Amino acid sequence: MSLPRAVKIVEVGPRDGLQNEKQFVSTDVKIALVDRLAAAGFQNVEAASFVSPKWVPQMADGAEVMAGIARRPGTIYSVLTPNMKGFEAALAARADEIVIFGAASEAFSQKNINCSIAESIARFEPVARAAKENGIRVRGSISCSLGCPYQGDVPVTSVLDVVQRMAALGCDEIDIADTIGVGTPKRTREVLASVTKVFPRERLSGHFHDTYGQALANIYAALLEGIEIFHASVAGLGGCPYAKGATGNVATEDVLYLMNGLGVETGVDLDQVVAIGDFISNAIGRTNVSRAGRALLAKAKSDESAC
Amino acid sequence: MSLPRAVKIVEVGPRDGLQNEKQFVSTDVKIALVDRLAAAGFQNVEAASFVSPKWVPQMADGAEVMAGIARRPGTIYSVLTPNMKGFEAALAARADEIVIFGAASEAFSQKNINCSIAESIARFEPVARAAKENGIRVRGSISCSLGCPYQGDVPVTSVLDVVQRMAALGCDEIDIADTIGVGTPKRTREVLASVTKVFPRERLSGHFHDTYGQALANIYAALLEGIEIFHASVAGLGGCPYAKGATGNVATEDVLYLMNGLGVETGVDLDQVVAIGDFISNAIGRTNVSRAGRALLAKAKSDESAC
Repeated sequence: MSLPRAVKIVEVGPRDGLQNEKQFVSTDVKIALVDRLAAAGFQNVEAASFVSPKWVPQMADGAEVMAGIARRPGTIYSVLTPNMKGFEAALAARADEIVIFGAASEAFSQKNINCSIAESIARFEPVARAAKENGIRVRGSISCSLGCPYQGDVPVTSVLDVVQRMAALGCDEIDIADTIGVGTPKRTREVLASVTKVFPRERLSGHFHDTYGQALANIYAALLEGIEIFHASVAGLGGCPYAKGATGNVATEDVLYLMNGLGVETGVDLDQVVAIGDFISNAIGRTNVSRAGRALLAKAKSDESAC
Repeated sequence: MSLPRAVKIVEVGPRDGLQNEKQFVSTDVKIALVDRLAAAGFQNVEAASFVSPKWVPQMADGAEVMAGIARRPGTIYSVLTPNMKGFEAALAARADEIVIFGAASEAFSQKNINCSIAESIARFEPVARAAKENGIRVRGSISCSLGCPYQGDVPVTSVLDVVQRMAALGCDEIDIADTIGVGTPKRTREVLASVTKVFPRERLSGHFHDTYGQALANIYAALLEGIEIFHASVAGLGGCPYAKGATGNVATEDVLYLMNGLGVETGVDLDQVVAIGDFISNAIGRTNVSRAGRALLAKAKSDESAC
């Protein structure tokens, strides 16, 4: 059993985590969240989305967020761009990386973005090309890589097909995303073992959801396959839109606790992230669903009251 | 990577899960819980505790519970017995297995049961002998095997020492328990790899808590070490007494979801367990903390409303 010496944790809370919050989160809170996360040591923070505010009203202030944050040298600030209009906004906002997205499931692609997988990739071609011409990194995210809420099983060949299309677009990094959290370690390892044969392992990331409680087991399984990049959301921000009340993104605190225990370096300070999880949960009036976060906060409180 | 073909899941909710509930849970509810769990396919249910009601008032009706359940042929109904008085009650109640307990941490032993590890083992000697003479199985549980709330790290040699003392008492099964959920897969594998050298692997069980969200990752790690018995608590019954508000026992539904995904047989019906988790959470007015349980219940509700 040999694990990577170090991993990169991509903090997706400010974008993927907040995007489904119904109550608008103020721009100031979003800026504070991004800045505190970068200060805690994350090399990469998913900071904003340049999608139509009609689709995702919560992300309407992406330009203000990007203009308001204090850029840390070396930190990659990523933004989601669905089309050329989004890309122009990302360019104006000086994003370090754009995120384009597709699905490994034809049914999900049709229901979620109203087009086939092939059409979605074709639409991203000019976006990816423009990014490359402007020296901006491109990340491709592949949802439903371990299962789909509409079609159920997703064949590994479908994932491989989209990985190859994303690679052809020039993606610097590709996310294997378990959008609905149905994966378990066996499937995780099967898919990753196949994908690493067609795309460089060190540029693949694992994006796991904790809907069925499997995220950390899947991350450990992915580490055993040599994966070195993982997505996580502070305080577990981001519910599961396919099962109201269920958990979504894996909580960053839980992932950092795992990595610390495994001796895998992240460069991120867990205590700071626990405090950030408390801050954002209070700011938006949401239950902190990180188990490590809650346990460490409860421990800190009982230590305090014991003094 | 070769995993066991099948595992035994020991359902500990009725005893370990309920014991810290402040509001008394009626005997009828306890009986219904045990009976429904046995009917769902568990080969082994931890059903009651014969400790002084002064210590654990919630478990005062152990004899009534054992008398009231419908015994399924082949199912092992376990009870906790701290001393000879408890053993006599277990014998009268026709328990199939008694559970004796010690800690791998000297500090925890002193604080939790007011005696040294060596003294606690000596006290259990007559209990274990009497059980053997009466043809009752003996299980030995070793708390703090991966860490202690008082002393922090617990050396592997301490765990090995208690395993050997428990083996000498004639234990049929020994639990490696992460009482406060601090373990991660690296430590889990190190400890289990050592323990399997001094006690038969197939009679060792993993008892993991989800306090820091690590339980399923640890269970997967334990499977990779060949462990074939795991403890779990329906709906995640049982909080963490060392960090109020934090999670305790790993939820059975999450464990079953993992095993189903890995193709590891359990003989237990997940759908029935999800329904039992909903029943007991409602009956005692507690939040169901199983992620798989909540997601499957939410999914069932949205399927219903879609009809």
